[in-house]
Amino acid sequence: MEAVRTTAEGVITLKTKKVNAFGTEAADALLEQLHIQRRTPKSHDVEIEILYCGVCHSDLHTVRNEWHGTIYPCVPGHEIVGRVISVGNYVSKFKAGDLAAVGCMVDSCRECDYCKEGLEQYCEEGNTGTYNSPDKHLGTQTYGGYSESIVVDESFVLRVPENLDLAATAPLLCAGITTYSPLKHWNVGPGKKVGIVGIGGLGHMGVKLAKAMGAEVIVFTTSSSKFEDARRLGADDVVLSKDEDQMSRYAGKLHFVLDAVSAQHDINAYLSLLRVDGSLALVGAPEHPLPVAAFSLIPYRRSFAGSMIGGIAETQEMLDFCGKHNIVSDIEMINIQQINGAYERLLKGDVKYRFVIDMASLKKQA
Amino acid sequence: MEAVRTTAEGVITLKTKKVNAFGTEAADALLEQLHIQRRTPKSHDVEIEILYCGVCHSDLHTVRNEWHGTIYPCVPGHEIVGRVISVGNYVSKFKAGDLAAVGCMVDSCRECDYCKEGLEQYCEEGNTGTYNSPDKHLGTQTYGGYSESIVVDESFVLRVPENLDLAATAPLLCAGITTYSPLKHWNVGPGKKVGIVGIGGLGHMGVKLAKAMGAEVIVFTTSSSKFEDARRLGADDVVLSKDEDQMSRYAGKLHFVLDAVSAQHDINAYLSLLRVDGSLALVGAPEHPLPVAAFSLIPYRRSFAGSMIGGIAETQEMLDFCGKHNIVSDIEMINIQQINGAYERLLKGDVKYRFVIDMASLKKQA
Repeated sequence: MEAVRTTAEGVITLKTKKVNAFGTEAADALLEQLHIQRRTPKSHDVEIEILYCGVCHSDLHTVRNEWHGTIYPCVPGHEIVGRVISVGNYVSKFKAGDLAAVGCMVDSCRECDYCKEGLEQYCEEGNTGTYNSPDKHLGTQTYGGYSESIVVDESFVLRVPENLDLAATAPLLCAGITTYSPLKHWNVGPGKKVGIVGIGGLGHMGVKLAKAMGAEVIVFTTSSSKFEDARRLGADDVVLSKDEDQMSRYAGKLHFVLDAVSAQHDINAYLSLLRVDGSLALVGAPEHPLPVAAFSLIPYRRSFAGSMIGGIAETQEMLDFCGKHNIVSDIEMINIQQINGAYERLLKGDVKYRFVIDMASLKKQA
Repeated sequence: MEAVRTTAEGVITLKTKKVNAFGTEAADALLEQLHIQRRTPKSHDVEIEILYCGVCHSDLHTVRNEWHGTIYPCVPGHEIVGRVISVGNYVSKFKAGDLAAVGCMVDSCRECDYCKEGLEQYCEEGNTGTYNSPDKHLGTQTYGGYSESIVVDESFVLRVPENLDLAATAPLLCAGITTYSPLKHWNVGPGKKVGIVGIGGLGHMGVKLAKAMGAEVIVFTTSSSKFEDARRLGADDVVLSKDEDQMSRYAGKLHFVLDAVSAQHDINAYLSLLRVDGSLALVGAPEHPLPVAAFSLIPYRRSFAGSMIGGIAETQEMLDFCGKHNIVSDIEMINIQQINGAYERLLKGDVKYRFVIDMASLKKQA
């Protein structure tokens, strides 16, 4: 098959391949099987058979157009692990048969200051998201990992440590890097007291990673039912955030707080836990603005920050770190046919702690 | 005279001296002349005749109990310059006749990690404010600079550059250090684009200091009437913050923003001006919490921070920097008898840019 695209340089014809995928045609439609086009690998491309794909809350937001700007059909999924099927002539990092992974980005401008610094996620031109971004090759939107295969420039393909459980590795590509990057950026390590707020897909990775980095980890949760699990994940202490007495034990004591809560919550209660020059980094994205009191920040020169995924080199560093420390996500495996039900459970927080789709299930239906 | 105080160690009797001051007996009372006690200098103390005292908005907040916790009588003032009258036996840094200054603090625990790092303003025990803090010596509250003289441990007394206009130097002790400290902390200097939001007592110092540090300075103001003044103070560019087109010119372009606005304002509009890893530091203190959108922080790993005055060593560094660069505050001199009217004008923002009290006026009435 072919994709024809008219650009300023003229008409571009690209060979494509029809592949099975799962996605939606509209914001209020359920996900169902559909077909998309993948380009035939170019000289720097890697073609990957997708074996597992994690289910991120962003998938749901995008499919349902909750962040606006969704282009349909929409095929989500940006926690992708699989095996290389073929590579372009100039590809040096991968060969057919290798394990490979793709995260939240498949391209960026590669020329701005941020790209040159390895901060492709903050590319001045905007990075090319793995789904729902303009596809530079086909002229359509990009299609994500709820599909048989994907074709990505090798610069945006990651190597996967051989020792890790492959399915449980998939969530590292978004939940892993989203928590690893701020923990590294704000110098979490031995001698540091670190708070993790919220134990879900992101938070549970934050606990594992901060602990492996050598920090003292304190988990803050609204539910005492999560205490045991927080300890199992590696927390040195667990605090019921509704209990002011428990909270006051850490007032002014923490070097860093990673806030992985997407629901509305009182950010001032967590800012007050920071030491002088401490930072709280938000990685969840509450829908409405969070009220911040001036006196939560001024007296201790505190910072309320945000962080978004991580660069490509840092994502590789994170995967290698996880390989070395034997860290993967806690997952619940599903078939692609269960995805609509999984979304409903995701909305209730009913998953420990990440759904991963066994993409072999897509073939059954194809 | 004597002050008698009963402590755990027994009854302490301290010689004191009655001095003239200006202050209030209640939150709703006008400031008027009153008398306070100053201790006779101890071995490490410096006794200073106060020549000029700046008028800070905190004075007004405290006098009127707007931050709660004001103890009456209240004598405000923490932008103090004067001349040394006498020194204790062990004082080495000062001698009678020297110029000297006192800022927002007169003591701290001196033993916690923060004090040892020169961050006395963030002392774990709480620093001793120049006014309305527990006085460790007399057992009363501390009394500030709207008075004839003050007695302060030499560790909290600053040296004043001889080349600066003395009256216009007074505001450096609060407005100066409050803006200098965050500009230094967030590495403002050559090659950096810095926004200053709000041109008042703090903001106008921020412009002068950031410019002297070598940065490119952009002023943001709600009033086009301040454009000319902003340029005169040293701004490279001035932006009308109500004008979205003007604001968009700096979207994602600034390394640092110093926000000196005490009124409620849309902080997201300024956060969006920051580059990747940029910080906005609040030094004004709006009464109500400021709503912060997650997407103002996450996409560019931005930080919304606060900063409070500066440490003693850093305050000295600031005074020396101002001496070297010939920087003082723009002031309007008043007599102490005009203070109540000055407070009313302060509330309207009707001052360019700091009232300074000529303390000689206190003697006229005494």
